[in-house]
Amino acid sequence: MIQQRLVVYSGGMDSFTLLHHVLRLRGPSIIRTIGFDYGQRHRRELDVAAKVCDFLGIERIVVNLTSLRPLLSASALTNPDMLMPEGHYEAASMSQTVVPGRNTIMLSIAMGVAESALGEDDVATVYYGAHSGDHHIYPDCRPKFYDSMRKVFADATEGRVGLEAPFLWGSKTTILRAGQKMGLDYGKTYTCYAGGELACGKCGSCQERLAAFSEIGATDPLDYQSREIFK
Amino acid sequence: MIQQRLVVYSGGMDSFTLLHHVLRLRGPSIIRTIGFDYGQRHRRELDVAAKVCDFLGIERIVVNLTSLRPLLSASALTNPDMLMPEGHYEAASMSQTVVPGRNTIMLSIAMGVAESALGEDDVATVYYGAHSGDHHIYPDCRPKFYDSMRKVFADATEGRVGLEAPFLWGSKTTILRAGQKMGLDYGKTYTCYAGGELACGKCGSCQERLAAFSEIGATDPLDYQSREIFK
Repeated sequence: MIQQRLVVYSGGMDSFTLLHHVLRLRGPSIIRTIGFDYGQRHRRELDVAAKVCDFLGIERIVVNLTSLRPLLSASALTNPDMLMPEGHYEAASMSQTVVPGRNTIMLSIAMGVAESALGEDDVATVYYGAHSGDHHIYPDCRPKFYDSMRKVFADATEGRVGLEAPFLWGSKTTILRAGQKMGLDYGKTYTCYAGGELACGKCGSCQERLAAFSEIGATDPLDYQSREIFK
Repeated sequence: MIQQRLVVYSGGMDSFTLLHHVLRLRGPSIIRTIGFDYGQRHRRELDVAAKVCDFLGIERIVVNLTSLRPLLSASALTNPDMLMPEGHYEAASMSQTVVPGRNTIMLSIAMGVAESALGEDDVATVYYGAHSGDHHIYPDCRPKFYDSMRKVFADATEGRVGLEAPFLWGSKTTILRAGQKMGLDYGKTYTCYAGGELACGKCGSCQERLAAFSEIGATDPLDYQSREIFK
């Protein structure tokens, strides 16, 4: 029996920490990462992720979902005609960054990819980096969704592919603390929704990250256009 | 409030019947169909579906998932190097036609597409044509899976997109009887897994269809290479 572990790894801070968490799990396993090109403005995250996997010597799978872009266009993350909202995730405007069905689609594909690679007696686990900071705005990061999706995995694969979200009940700060314990270099991540070379510092994703670093009294190694935290 | 109905319609007999069933549901609604190009050998079904939607004046969405083909290659439906198994669905060899994660992926995308099109007060329902003849071989056509997936829809969309499978407890024969009551022309469908111009008559999909027509004492209007039913 081979234990396969497939990490949904975008290139951002959460899934970067998740990947290193999975690398430290006990027991022999084959670890791969999967990422998605869904026409996001912040495609740069994919390049960052590829470099990290290269450095770690881990297989990287990138799934091209750009054909979905015109179909899932209600989000500022994929629609260049929409302004990227600035400020805290809990702001009403931030709902414009919801990509309908995104996690359900990504997790379903990860499940299928994991199952496809299984030998007769093998099992696999898919890991994703949902955390409590996302619960408010993204329904598909909530514990309720996670429970339902685990059941889908069990039923669709007859128990051969599991789903785990180790940070589900943690916050961005929990994740950052875990990463610092592992000695991770967050300069190797890319988080900003705006997708520029320098992180904007203003989108919900940058703001949440800056706040987490500030909370633990550390300095984010990334370069920003602005480090001001909106209250 | 607008009621949207999105029918997962492949071009085959089950979803063709499903589409016409949905067309006859009461109440004003916007009906669209969605199909998937996942590199299936029987791409011909997509052309057939396009023609039917054209004829009915219904919007047709085709999602290009061909980039998934090399990732989901354990199936005879998508891997041209595998022989297409012949005979009844319950034969062990037929498990080679399982595409890992297929229905989970398709339904997730349908969910996202449906949600993307919703106005503030709108609701949507996704319909798919799972039936009891598929339960044995395809885990993602079973009632258990359906129940789990409905929960994912509810949680991921906060109840705005539902999922229905009207034929879940019926057989291929139930579906055919429903279609005949509606006066449907099954010459407008394409079912064969082998994907040739003439239906092969030998794959699990052709065999199941021929058996259903035989059971109700009718003749399938499609042209076949062979109409012999294996016992």
